[in-house]
Amino acid sequence: MAFSEFRPLDEKSLIEYIKATPSLSSKIGGNFDDLKIKEVGDGNLNFVYIIVGTSGSFVIKQALPYIRCIGESWPMTKERAYFEALALKEHGGLCPEHVPEVYHFDRTMSLIGMRYLEPPHIILRKGLIAGIEYPFLAEHMSEYMAKTLFFTSLLYLSTTEHKRAVAEFCGNVELCRLTEQVIFSDPYKVSKYNRWTSPYLDRDAEAVREDNILKLEVAELKSKFCERAQALVHGDLHTGSVMVTCDSTQVIDPEFAFYGPMGFDIGAFIGNLILAFIAQDGHADQGNDRKIYKEWILKTTEDTWNLFHQKFTALWDAHKDGPGEAYLPAIYNNPELQKLIQEKYMKELFHDTLGFGAAKMIRRIVGVAHVEDFESIKEVSIRADCERRALDLAKTLLKKRREFVSISEVISAIKHVQS
Amino acid sequence: MAFSEFRPLDEKSLIEYIKATPSLSSKIGGNFDDLKIKEVGDGNLNFVYIIVGTSGSFVIKQALPYIRCIGESWPMTKERAYFEALALKEHGGLCPEHVPEVYHFDRTMSLIGMRYLEPPHIILRKGLIAGIEYPFLAEHMSEYMAKTLFFTSLLYLSTTEHKRAVAEFCGNVELCRLTEQVIFSDPYKVSKYNRWTSPYLDRDAEAVREDNILKLEVAELKSKFCERAQALVHGDLHTGSVMVTCDSTQVIDPEFAFYGPMGFDIGAFIGNLILAFIAQDGHADQGNDRKIYKEWILKTTEDTWNLFHQKFTALWDAHKDGPGEAYLPAIYNNPELQKLIQEKYMKELFHDTLGFGAAKMIRRIVGVAHVEDFESIKEVSIRADCERRALDLAKTLLKKRREFVSISEVISAIKHVQS
Repeated sequence: MAFSEFRPLDEKSLIEYIKATPSLSSKIGGNFDDLKIKEVGDGNLNFVYIIVGTSGSFVIKQALPYIRCIGESWPMTKERAYFEALALKEHGGLCPEHVPEVYHFDRTMSLIGMRYLEPPHIILRKGLIAGIEYPFLAEHMSEYMAKTLFFTSLLYLSTTEHKRAVAEFCGNVELCRLTEQVIFSDPYKVSKYNRWTSPYLDRDAEAVREDNILKLEVAELKSKFCERAQALVHGDLHTGSVMVTCDSTQVIDPEFAFYGPMGFDIGAFIGNLILAFIAQDGHADQGNDRKIYKEWILKTTEDTWNLFHQKFTALWDAHKDGPGEAYLPAIYNNPELQKLIQEKYMKELFHDTLGFGAAKMIRRIVGVAHVEDFESIKEVSIRADCERRALDLAKTLLKKRREFVSISEVISAIKHVQS
Repeated sequence: MAFSEFRPLDEKSLIEYIKATPSLSSKIGGNFDDLKIKEVGDGNLNFVYIIVGTSGSFVIKQALPYIRCIGESWPMTKERAYFEALALKEHGGLCPEHVPEVYHFDRTMSLIGMRYLEPPHIILRKGLIAGIEYPFLAEHMSEYMAKTLFFTSLLYLSTTEHKRAVAEFCGNVELCRLTEQVIFSDPYKVSKYNRWTSPYLDRDAEAVREDNILKLEVAELKSKFCERAQALVHGDLHTGSVMVTCDSTQVIDPEFAFYGPMGFDIGAFIGNLILAFIAQDGHADQGNDRKIYKEWILKTTEDTWNLFHQKFTALWDAHKDGPGEAYLPAIYNNPELQKLIQEKYMKELFHDTLGFGAAKMIRRIVGVAHVEDFESIKEVSIRADCERRALDLAKTLLKKRREFVSISEVISAIKHVQS
């Protein structure tokens, strides 16, 4: 059964769909007798079904033509599923160890069939709130970012391949517009979607809207986001887009993927680790003061950047005679110059990372979408206090990002915001 | 007669083609009796025919699948005609007073029918070599650049329109690659296409290839060229792409058009004016020392930037509540902030302009394509001397561009290179 036009699936039609789709039914050995189906979409945008049979399992993700959590009043193209599938396949090809495999894609139905990340996989954000250490997190995330960003940039691609891919992902414009609105615009103006812990943060939210220098810097970041096609970024790489176990790290949900600035991804991840760090004070109790865990988050933040730097430049060195057309070996032909080039490139990327990371933090405190790290702090005055410290740090990181020379200086700044 | 596949036209088949094309034959009143046809393509890439009848005229430009001046050994997609026609129509719609009208476009034949720029129109470069003053040149070129660049940027376009257009012009990748090669790569490495006035400039050409700091800065410009989709640029806006009379200024040949950094266009024009200025010493003779003319070129260079700045910011002010999504009025909501934003934007654009302008100068001295301004200086030692001074100035402008605060400082630097 091929559906000739889009319709949202329910549990019943889902089974019919699977029966008619060999690439899916084969995953469960064609056995429909004791199939377990569970709708688990706790995100904002889609339906997600887990299908588990006796001999296999998979996940079905279907995009709806609006933002699920807000409803039909906020329409959103279901074509985003096409770009999500494309990015999963592209990034999965480059880094299969940290991207779930795509089994099936149906553009008409905006439907992706993919690997089910079986228990004990949980959303990283929930693990961070629970205080669970993931010893390989920095290693894995730096590996994922280094590979996906390096191999889709002009450091590896020819101009021809790069422009073709840029053109294709320009089609994901509606999701780019959503990012522009919720990250770079709404938090800096009055918007009906904004919210914050009121009345505690009323004055803080107002201060964001009245900060000329902050708005000047945010404009520069927005301009890079809109105009600079540096690499195929995930586009929404916060700690809710990562599933983890002790030894597995899987990046999901790249429906915002497009060719944009690399720092947007690295910043999203690091910015959300910083939020997780600051929120720990709200999760501390008599049984666990979270001090050791906070040290682990800081170490993971620092390691993520340092390992990314190391892996990314190692890929660059390994492929400097490859197809990439940014720095031709015949021009960049001596070790001193190669060192200068890399230092300049990585310095700009570091400052982009801090800027975008800070912008992601700010929007989680005074914009439409908040994070469970803070939302789960029951005592509202404690929550507001954590949020204010995160907001103040983010403003500093964003405005002074060019003054930071290394990630260890950033870690020091984070330590200084302790209550 | 519609040709179902591409074939290069000669004078005979050209007439058949015109007869079968109402939008062209109507331009000459359907009268083929005393038609004058002249092939005038003195450029590097195409055939150009002028068709003049008793009651009208037009030009036919046909792209061939290779670079004409080098021959079939350097293939080049004839699809460039599509992007040229698209850019002519787009820029013509925005600034009809300085862009010739397109009457007809045939994608299969890679053929554009357009307004014939009748005598006394000549190529601006030739006018500059001849020492002719064009009193409206700065006014007209600043108008053209302000309008075409402003209205195709995110200062005026919505993200949706911008990304759609960016995607389309990604198709012009072969021409972008050619630019990358001849401007940002070949001059900085050994290449069989490079040439210079030898042996005079042998050491100078070598110095360019050995200058680490220069190559570091060129890499930054190349990265902007490849990654930053700021506006629909002409892509080849030197003084050979402008036709002039005393009171008319017409920009032609946008076959390199794509979404790139605005400074690439402004720099191309200003860089070539500077070349024209320095070449004057080679054209001076007992009858005319060219001193007054050199003053006029400097004044025109200075006016071009200042008028561009004035017109561009005026368009910005006039449309700040328009569809452009870069700086939403609800965020950039006070005069002080608006001033900060514009100053920051225009400062970066100024430095881009100097950088790209300098890169364009360098490639005309040690790269594949030279300029008639220098080539027409018969005494080779004088030519070499002019070229060396231009090269040294360009290296300074490129490496120190961020130290220049105003165009008048640039003019001072140009004056200092007098022999």
